[in-house]
Amino acid sequence: MFTGSAAERDARDPLAGVRERFVLPRDQIYLAGNSLGALPDTVAVRLERAVREEWGEGAVRSWNRADWIGAPRRVGDRLAPLLGARPGEVLVCDATSVNLFKLLGAALRLRPGREVVVCEGDGFPSDGYIAASAASWLAPGHRLRTVPRAKLLDAFDRDVAVVLLHHVDYRSAHRLPMTEVCEAARAHGVLTLWDVSHSAGAMPLELGRAGADLAVGCGYKYLCGGPGAPAFVYVRGELVPALEQPLQGWLGHRAPFAFEADYEPASGIERLLCGTPPILSLLAFEAALELLGALDPLAVRAKSEALGDFFIACAERECAGLGVEIASPRAARERGSQIALRHAEAYEVMQALIARGVIGDFREPDLLRFGLAPHYVRFSDVERAVHTLRDVLAQGAQRDPRYRQRNRVV
Amino acid sequence: MFTGSAAERDARDPLAGVRERFVLPRDQIYLAGNSLGALPDTVAVRLERAVREEWGEGAVRSWNRADWIGAPRRVGDRLAPLLGARPGEVLVCDATSVNLFKLLGAALRLRPGREVVVCEGDGFPSDGYIAASAASWLAPGHRLRTVPRAKLLDAFDRDVAVVLLHHVDYRSAHRLPMTEVCEAARAHGVLTLWDVSHSAGAMPLELGRAGADLAVGCGYKYLCGGPGAPAFVYVRGELVPALEQPLQGWLGHRAPFAFEADYEPASGIERLLCGTPPILSLLAFEAALELLGALDPLAVRAKSEALGDFFIACAERECAGLGVEIASPRAARERGSQIALRHAEAYEVMQALIARGVIGDFREPDLLRFGLAPHYVRFSDVERAVHTLRDVLAQGAQRDPRYRQRNRVV
Repeated sequence: MFTGSAAERDARDPLAGVRERFVLPRDQIYLAGNSLGALPDTVAVRLERAVREEWGEGAVRSWNRADWIGAPRRVGDRLAPLLGARPGEVLVCDATSVNLFKLLGAALRLRPGREVVVCEGDGFPSDGYIAASAASWLAPGHRLRTVPRAKLLDAFDRDVAVVLLHHVDYRSAHRLPMTEVCEAARAHGVLTLWDVSHSAGAMPLELGRAGADLAVGCGYKYLCGGPGAPAFVYVRGELVPALEQPLQGWLGHRAPFAFEADYEPASGIERLLCGTPPILSLLAFEAALELLGALDPLAVRAKSEALGDFFIACAERECAGLGVEIASPRAARERGSQIALRHAEAYEVMQALIARGVIGDFREPDLLRFGLAPHYVRFSDVERAVHTLRDVLAQGAQRDPRYRQRNRVV
Repeated sequence: MFTGSAAERDARDPLAGVRERFVLPRDQIYLAGNSLGALPDTVAVRLERAVREEWGEGAVRSWNRADWIGAPRRVGDRLAPLLGARPGEVLVCDATSVNLFKLLGAALRLRPGREVVVCEGDGFPSDGYIAASAASWLAPGHRLRTVPRAKLLDAFDRDVAVVLLHHVDYRSAHRLPMTEVCEAARAHGVLTLWDVSHSAGAMPLELGRAGADLAVGCGYKYLCGGPGAPAFVYVRGELVPALEQPLQGWLGHRAPFAFEADYEPASGIERLLCGTPPILSLLAFEAALELLGALDPLAVRAKSEALGDFFIACAERECAGLGVEIASPRAARERGSQIALRHAEAYEVMQALIARGVIGDFREPDLLRFGLAPHYVRFSDVERAVHTLRDVLAQGAQRDPRYRQRNRVV
């Protein structure tokens, strides 16, 4: 299906029409959807209604009438099919790091007597910060065992309570074989806690079938839920009733409006709620899922893989001898939905690209990242991005002193 | 200033024009602003810009260009004057309960060797759940000392690390004398942690001058930040550098985008950040503060007190012998900005009032709550609300079977 020129591939793309459903930066090639997903056309109208009708006219009554109170579970159920989860296994709330803290606490209580938390030495740093924090604050005496990604399967033993895994690595986009890792962990009684921030939305996930115990992820990358969209938690159904978590706030109570003195958790996944959720951000995410949830997940994955293969082929052809190296797996099945390139002046190169209308991002120390969100990135975008990269490198344009100044780059 | 008939009081109200800046439920008397503040006219236009221009057109670049990344601190600085705080002492992020957990953890580390957390036995239950959770998860061996609100001043000794206080009680609206409590706590080396959810926005606070150490509060009541608006934390300036908190996520790092393997907290109040904030909800709150921050805080308080006094006077006159009792302090200086009435059939009475266009709320077991947000509630609203209440009670309208069915009421 995806062969020939970029134009031919775009012409045959079954998802080509979906791009029209997004608002994208004008005259830019937007390859940063792995950082902030583009704006779906369902959002603005939904938010307008949420603000004027539900907040303005309905006001406090909208907690019931507009079912704001049910939103974390409702949006979770809407998200569940994209994660390979069942209704009641997913909840949308709080930030990824906050949810990670909850689930690490929960995992430690589910595995009393085991004193080790395994995490990747080169994983997303924030997850590592939270793992360190959870081990130190929630379970003094526990320790982190930091393991290279390639050695994870050898890191499990009877001392390990839980392993924190990045399904897709935020730099290289390397993807772990979820089923295999879950099996290896389960053989030692180790709980798996997956961060699927860099895969959810870009490919069909199979958390249930793969045997994942717990997962978190953010709503604002491929899921297009908006800046800082509430994150999600997944808990394998049979673990829910025994789950205890440290952030026990009123919305996780079995009867929040009974205002009982003692905390008793909700029987379902709602026990992972804590405080009142940010409804406007949550409804924006829900509106995004209306659009994303209607797409064929296999078509999404097929295009994602094809975009990545095409990017690599273009980069190898156009940028040979220009100092870049492919830092992502070549095999699409081992990859998420971005391509990372290594270059000694990666920061400056990315500044030069952005100045020329190609929006990707830079990651320390030497990576150029290009997010290939299959919902709105075209093969012709990939081709133009690589041509622009080639031109920058061939001209040494990155050596312009303007590009050396280090501003914050997200 | 506030004397005479309701109409005369409204005519002399210096804040009368502010009501026009809010969108309110049509043909209703909205007395639930202590639960969800009404919609300021600054919000819809700001959100429209945030969605279409910043997210849609700016996309990931808006973290820098629109300073999304600075929003938690910027909105905190904007809120600070309403709290009696200095720039750099307030941060807007997460939910109140999550922030409470952070600050309880921080307080326990600031007072090593002290093993008691004091909290009110009859305070807002969610705060109690979090206090129990923090004591159990963060500091095994610690214990809660639950004290009636009236006995708080006698509860401090050298075993107490921190006391969790509700500035204004969520049911009665009773207000604690902040300076006096802070002095009593300080005399024993006890840290004060104030929940100001039920006072912030309705009256000028003086957290700094009163000597408060720590505070949290929500953005969605009198501050009108929207449903589930992000909450805030306050830390007395000199405590910030030593503060350690359990939810150490990437945005609390001194250099979030350096992606360093080890966590080092930001030097300022940003160390209380955890994950990525829900930007849309946060910008809605900021827009609300544009309006609220421009009002004269003394005029706000004067009107709040006058509305409460007027409510009590009307209720005593109109509802004598009808089975209601004033559950709020009569002295305005001991009160927040709501009036609570006790009635044996409070749930049904509130249903009857709502059916007649008076929106207040019910709190277990027998309270009718009427929020008197001084920004948009008129004296004539109070008068009509009390007249409606009198009519309901005089007719026994609450005994209509429709009103007995217990649905969720927020």
